[in-house]
Amino acid sequence: MADEVVLLGFLPSLFAARLKIALAEKGAEYEYKEEDLRSKSPLLVQMNPVHKKVPVLIHNVKPICESLIALQYIDEVWNDKAPLLPSDPGLGAQARFWADFIDKKEMIWAAKEEEHEAAKEFFDCIGVLEGQLGDKAFFGGETLGFVDVAVIPFYSWLSVFEKYGNCSIEAKHPKFTAWTKRCMEKESVSKSLPDQRRIYDFKVGGILTKLSVDQDL
Amino acid sequence: MADEVVLLGFLPSLFAARLKIALAEKGAEYEYKEEDLRSKSPLLVQMNPVHKKVPVLIHNVKPICESLIALQYIDEVWNDKAPLLPSDPGLGAQARFWADFIDKKEMIWAAKEEEHEAAKEFFDCIGVLEGQLGDKAFFGGETLGFVDVAVIPFYSWLSVFEKYGNCSIEAKHPKFTAWTKRCMEKESVSKSLPDQRRIYDFKVGGILTKLSVDQDL
Repeated sequence: MADEVVLLGFLPSLFAARLKIALAEKGAEYEYKEEDLRSKSPLLVQMNPVHKKVPVLIHNVKPICESLIALQYIDEVWNDKAPLLPSDPGLGAQARFWADFIDKKEMIWAAKEEEHEAAKEFFDCIGVLEGQLGDKAFFGGETLGFVDVAVIPFYSWLSVFEKYGNCSIEAKHPKFTAWTKRCMEKESVSKSLPDQRRIYDFKVGGILTKLSVDQDL
Repeated sequence: MADEVVLLGFLPSLFAARLKIALAEKGAEYEYKEEDLRSKSPLLVQMNPVHKKVPVLIHNVKPICESLIALQYIDEVWNDKAPLLPSDPGLGAQARFWADFIDKKEMIWAAKEEEHEAAKEFFDCIGVLEGQLGDKAFFGGETLGFVDVAVIPFYSWLSVFEKYGNCSIEAKHPKFTAWTKRCMEKESVSKSLPDQRRIYDFKVGGILTKLSVDQDL
């Protein structure tokens, strides 16, 4: 039986974008279904009854929820190419630590009432990640790895944070910016991420305010 | 060179208790260092500069932070006995999902201003976990697994939640209670957990109020 892979996502969701990138890196075929989060599909509710959130990866009818858990799953199942996690347990734990770091910080800034405070938290977080990147090409070293896939979807949100933070990411974080460019040169990344302009219009237009408080995004 | 394993913990920390149980299950020798979280040691700050929180597992001078990440690390490194995560990627993802579920919920209830609201969230969460346990002996099936190790440290906190929730866990959640008893029959668990009475005195005495808001516990 051929693998049946379905991804339930939502265009502005950076967590869904992670799975799109990982599946593209692995060369896995899948069917993408866009969710309307204001009216969630019965399939989403059935597949993720606990959180009822995107993304959900459905592999041969079984759901895998939570993007970092699904990333590790994809890496373990499609293990013949493009490894995301290092095989060394210590390096693997380090990669999971930094991916977890950005997710915990995201929960903090998404809960902020004031947009400029959220932007400040975001840029503080980018500063820490930039220090961690150092002079490496990717967080994973020479190739795109687990942390790169976890972090690069924030690229689509940069112009939103630049507006609310009233600053330029390129001036503030040149190494991080150079890294985003290296990632975007990869088709697996550039074809998986929504346009910055589109996210900007969504967010600044106010459509996403409630949803982001729900931490769906 | 023999392995040098150090655990930085704090007695009421249920996250540190997870690592004590896992190391005991694996039969790994380690040195335990109790932290005073009101005056963190230079070693803690050096080993976990990002979060400055316990627990930190230090294995041959290298730190592994975040308890669920360290649990997976322990399982990968001491892989000759007592497997915690199933080798099947789908079952592994499921185990990580439920461990992540309790941690996300814990962040929500720890942030509640009102103790009785926190207790309500806690019992709702136990209800969901009890449904997931069903008629199995352990979350991991016949033997103690990843989810069991992640959840059982909450046992030490039960009398605190019973007080604030004004209810009895045994009456409300008999299957969960039977599961706690099965876990506590194991020396790896019973010797790793602080006494309920001690946690009760700490918490109800008010010593832990600020610390739990810091999510150190």
